This record gives sequence, structure tokens and C-alpha cells, in this order.
Amino acid sequence: MAWRLSRRQGLAMGVWTAAAVPFSASAQPAHADPLPSWNDGPAKRSIMTFVGRVTREGPDFVPSARRIAVFDNDGTLWVEQPIYAQLAFALDRVRALAPQHPEWRAAQPFKAILEGDTSGFLATGEKGALELIMATHAGMTTTQFAATVADWLASARDGRFHRPYTELTYQPMLELLRFLRASGFKTFIVTGGGVEFVRVFSERVYAIPPEQVIGSSIVTRFVMEPDGKPVLEREARINFIDDGPGKPVGINQFIGRRPILAFGNSDGDREMLEWTSAGDAPSLVGLVHHTDAAREWAYDRRSGVGRLDKALNEANRKGWLVVDMKRDWWEIFAFKG
Amino acid sequence: MAWRLSRRQGLAMGVWTAAAVPFSASAQPAHADPLPSWNDGPAKRSIMTFVGRVTREGPDFVPSARRIAVFDNDGTLWVEQPIYAQLAFALDRVRALAPQHPEWRAAQPFKAILEGDTSGFLATGEKGALELIMATHAGMTTTQFAATVADWLASARDGRFHRPYTELTYQPMLELLRFLRASGFKTFIVTGGGVEFVRVFSERVYAIPPEQVIGSSIVTRFVMEPDGKPVLEREARINFIDDGPGKPVGINQFIGRRPILAFGNSDGDREMLEWTSAGDAPSLVGLVHHTDAAREWAYDRRSGVGRLDKALNEANRKGWLVVDMKRDWWEIFAFKG
Repeated sequence: MAWRLSRRQGLAMGVWTAAAVPFSASAQPAHADPLPSWNDGPAKRSIMTFVGRVTREGPDFVPSARRIAVFDNDGTLWVEQPIYAQLAFALDRVRALAPQHPEWRAAQPFKAILEGDTSGFLATGEKGALELIMATHAGMTTTQFAATVADWLASARDGRFHRPYTELTYQPMLELLRFLRASGFKTFIVTGGGVEFVRVFSERVYAIPPEQVIGSSIVTRFVMEPDGKPVLEREARINFIDDGPGKPVGINQFIGRRPILAFGNSDGDREMLEWTSAGDAPSLVGLVHHTDAAREWAYDRRSGVGRLDKALNEANRKGWLVVDMKRDWWEIFAFKG
Repeated sequence: MAWRLSRRQGLAMGVWTAAAVPFSASAQPAHADPLPSWNDGPAKRSIMTFVGRVTREGPDFVPSARRIAVFDNDGTLWVEQPIYAQLAFALDRVRALAPQHPEWRAAQPFKAILEGDTSGFLATGEKGALELIMATHAGMTTTQFAATVADWLASARDGRFHRPYTELTYQPMLELLRFLRASGFKTFIVTGGGVEFVRVFSERVYAIPPEQVIGSSIVTRFVMEPDGKPVLEREARINFIDDGPGKPVGINQFIGRRPILAFGNSDGDREMLEWTSAGDAPSLVGLVHHTDAAREWAYDRRSGVGRLDKALNEANRKGWLVVDMKRDWWEIFAFKG
């Protein structure tokens, strides 16, 4: 609140200054706030202080090429409740493909999904989830899969906010991504979700190009079609799980150097934060804590989706930044109401 | 030759022009040649024409974000004869580690390596090569491995040119990388070699950062050490072979979009070139043909290292660019003699 007032005062002053000094060399007033959706408080101050330290000449300066920032996606950059968007996609695909698969009427997890039997689906556990993924994400080319995801994103709506999933991104995090890039950082997504799912919208929604998205993947195979056109076929086999200890492994495999900033929101991000904070350079690691049931969702230690328990203990013990959504974010979404 | 003359005339004119028009807004004369080590001829003209087409507004314009260029490393950006640099590294490591491994005196492929018995080593085939890689590339952390490679690169010398391997890069290709980046391309290495080997020098030597290097890899595992410091342990298991059909798979996995320019030099690059040339956008794919035994090496269809046979047939059939080193390159290396 305090920040808001001073920001408005600042803007008013900016107008005055611009009028008085019309030939000022500065394109932007020095007081421009790069994080207007963040309330003034310890979270915002931690971020501003850290970015200042590593970008100004001095003992903590980090050259731009080493300013690698990594972000989890589900629950960190966009909404993950009540179910991951990619799971909603998979469930919708089962319904869309059901006419071609009469056998699904009698086989789990498809039977439960088609009957809208959530607890029945959940009872199929990891095996059911894997079968669901393979039935909806494999057996097509990479190009076909990307087109299917794009079509779905264009029409699907979240059940609570009645918006396309790509609008359910957190405005404060979009500002943080932009601020970091303007400060010479290279921003990456490191998601437990499917890399080829997230890449379909990452550039448009986050201004993060596909080559800066790391995620889970299934095996793809190069196939030369009879007409001489090569394709990449998506096979029903897991290639890489980019979650938990897989996140630092994925970061090393794809980026090849250690980030200096990492944000997550769940226990699946814990090792990524440990890895980031264990480097020689100064680092900032943070967790988004979902504390705002009125504006978004409130969940942590007992949530099935995006559980935050061990990582929260470690954050408290080690002094990692914990962003309290309710306290620290002035706005949550870019859209109104 | 013709180009050289006209370039000199151009430079002379540039001096005159600069003197006559001292306040010219242009920082660089319009005739500056971005590829001075390339002889004027079809190869250079193909490159210049292609870059012009995709960067100028018009039907073939490609937005900068999609100007992805991929390069093989061994034999395309630096020398790969008489053996790959990474193999030389592995052989040197066996010699360095031998005192700690008395058992190697009696076990292949180590026995042959320690006795300098090349044909004995070659006779151990793929199994021997794999054991060699695992004995020299695994069983340490990623940080330790990178330090070992850096130490080796600093001291090792190539047997023919008596230079550090990192000086055996092709000057025309360094110019091409620079020209592409200046034209809004993002340049990547896509190597059959080890990704963590090449990343040690890619930024310094090619100005290609680690996150733009794709290569073969062994499995790494996240381990929390007793002192609470996380490390990534390199395990003696293959993770990914980035060669042949693995190259388009790796490109899709790491970059997530199709390149519009690709250069290789051997059959291991064939699928990468097929994949690159099969997109909707205009594309340029090329092979470096080693034809200059006097200045570098001459080899193709029958070479054990960097064999170029099927890809050469396909290049001839499809009109891919084939760079004839002897004819097309004015200089091969940056160093003299």
C-alpha cells in the first residue's frame, strides 16, 4: 500500500520533471518501478537488492552471460489448481478421442475419466496417469502434437476463472521476468510438465523462447516417411522426468551452467533451489507460497497438487525468500475480476 | 582471388570515402566483407544470398527469433583428424590415471592404449570405446570433469600442427558464425561429442554459450553430500547419443524449433541436414568437404573418422551446398604456418 502511494507520487513528480527538463537524456524516469504489482515489503526488497548487487560493479557483480534465472511453471508462473492445465488437456483429449476408442469404455483409467469419476481415476495412481499421458501425448509427430495443444489452448477455459489457461499467469511474475531480462538475465522455464506442451505458449505468454524451456519429455524418434519427408514421432516411453532431483540434472544438461536465481513453489522445486543456492556467485532462491484463497488459491503442506512442505521447512531454515501471495502481491492476474 | 582484389580496391575506396565524408553515419563501410577468408565462388555466394533473402523484408523473410543455425563441431568447426580431440583427451587420461589402475596393464582396451598399440585398441571396437569413455568421463562430479578438460586443453598439443586443439578451428567458419549472429541468427553447436566436453571451450572459442551446445551425454545424478553441498555425479551410463538420427532428436529436445541453417561434414550430420531442409521456411544446409591435404586433411568416403559418403551422395542429389575446402577457403586457420 505504502508503495502504491509513493509510486503515484513518483509518477506525478515524473510528469513535473519531464516538463521542467524537456531534454533529459533519460528515456525513463529513474524512479520507474519495474515491479508495480508487488507490494513494498521484504519480498520485493530482496529481489531489488539482489538484482542491484549482481548488476552493479562491485564484489558481487555477475557478468550478464552468467545471469541465468530459472522458473518453475505450474504454480510459480501460472495457476496449477485444482488440476494442472496439462492434466486438463489430457482429460479433454480422452473425451475427444473416445469415439475412436470404444475399448476405453471398459479400461482404466479411461473408463473413470469418461464417466467423470474423479476418485476412480485417482485410484488408478501413477500407472493410470502414465497410461493417460501415453494415450494422449504419444503416437503422433511433434508437429501434430504442437498443433493439438495450440487448438486446445485456444478453446479451453479454466473452471473457476472462466479464462483461457494462458491468461492465468501471475502478473507479478511476468513483471519479474521482464525486469530480470531488462537487467541482463536470461530467463528459463524448468518445468515438471511436458516440454513440448509448455513450448507451445511460452514465447507468446512469457516471452521465453522454446530453446529456454526445459521440461519432462517422452522419447521421440526420427522417421523418414515414404514421401522422403522426415518427421519426429512421439513414442509411448518416458525420456526424462524434470522434477525434484531431475531439475538440477535438466538444468545442467540443457543450460550447462548454474543459475543464480531460481523460483519455485513446491517440493518438486527443492533440489533446483538447493543447486542454485550452492554456487560460488551470489544467488537468490524463492518460493511462491499460495496464501490467497480469495484471489487465487491457498494450499501448501497437505495439497495433492503442488505440495509445499519439505521445501518450506528448508526455506525457513536457510532463509530462502518465501513470497506470501496475499501479502506480497498487489495484483495477481493481469485481467480484472 | 577475384574477390581479394575487389576487396582491396573496396578498402582503398573506403579510406577515400571516409576522408571525404568524415561525418558519415555508417559505422562500417557498406562493402565490408563479413567472410574475408572465403574465396569468391558458389559457396560464399550461396551463403550471402541466403542470409540476404531471410533477413530482408520480402516473401522469404524469417523473423530473427526463428533464425536458428546449427553446426556440427568435429570436422565442421575444428579439426577431427587423425583422431577426435575428445579421443585424444580420453587416451591422455588413461595414461595419467594408469598409476592408480594397475589392473589396466592386463585389461583391454587399456592395455593396448598404455602400450601404444593402436590396432590393438581399434580391435576392441565399440565395447572398448565405451569402456574407455566410462573410465575417463564418469565417476566424478560435473565440476571436476570440467576442470579436468580445461587443464587438458591448456596443455595438450595436436601432433601435426603443434598447437592447442582450440586453435585448430576453421577461420572461415568462425567468420560465418559471427556473420550469422550479426544477421540476427542464434548459433548452436550440435555435436556427436560430449556436451560437457565441448561446453568447456565453446564460449571462449566460438562465442557460443554452454546453453547453445547440444551433444552426447552420460547420465548425471543429483547427490546431496554429507556436508549439505549438492553435486551432480557423472555415472557410467549413456544418456543420449547426439549423432545421426539423434541430431534432429536432440535439436527438437533442446531447441524445440527447426533450424533454417545447418552445417556438417560427415554422414553423422545427414539427418540433421534432412531435418533442417524439410521445414516450411527457406533453408540452407551445407557440408564441409575436406579436400586439402596440404593445408589440413583430405578425406571422405573411406575415412574411419568423419566419413562422408551417403551424405555426399544426398548433397549432390538434392543440391545441398558442398564447401570444397581447397577451392572455397582462402585461409583455413587463424594462426600462420
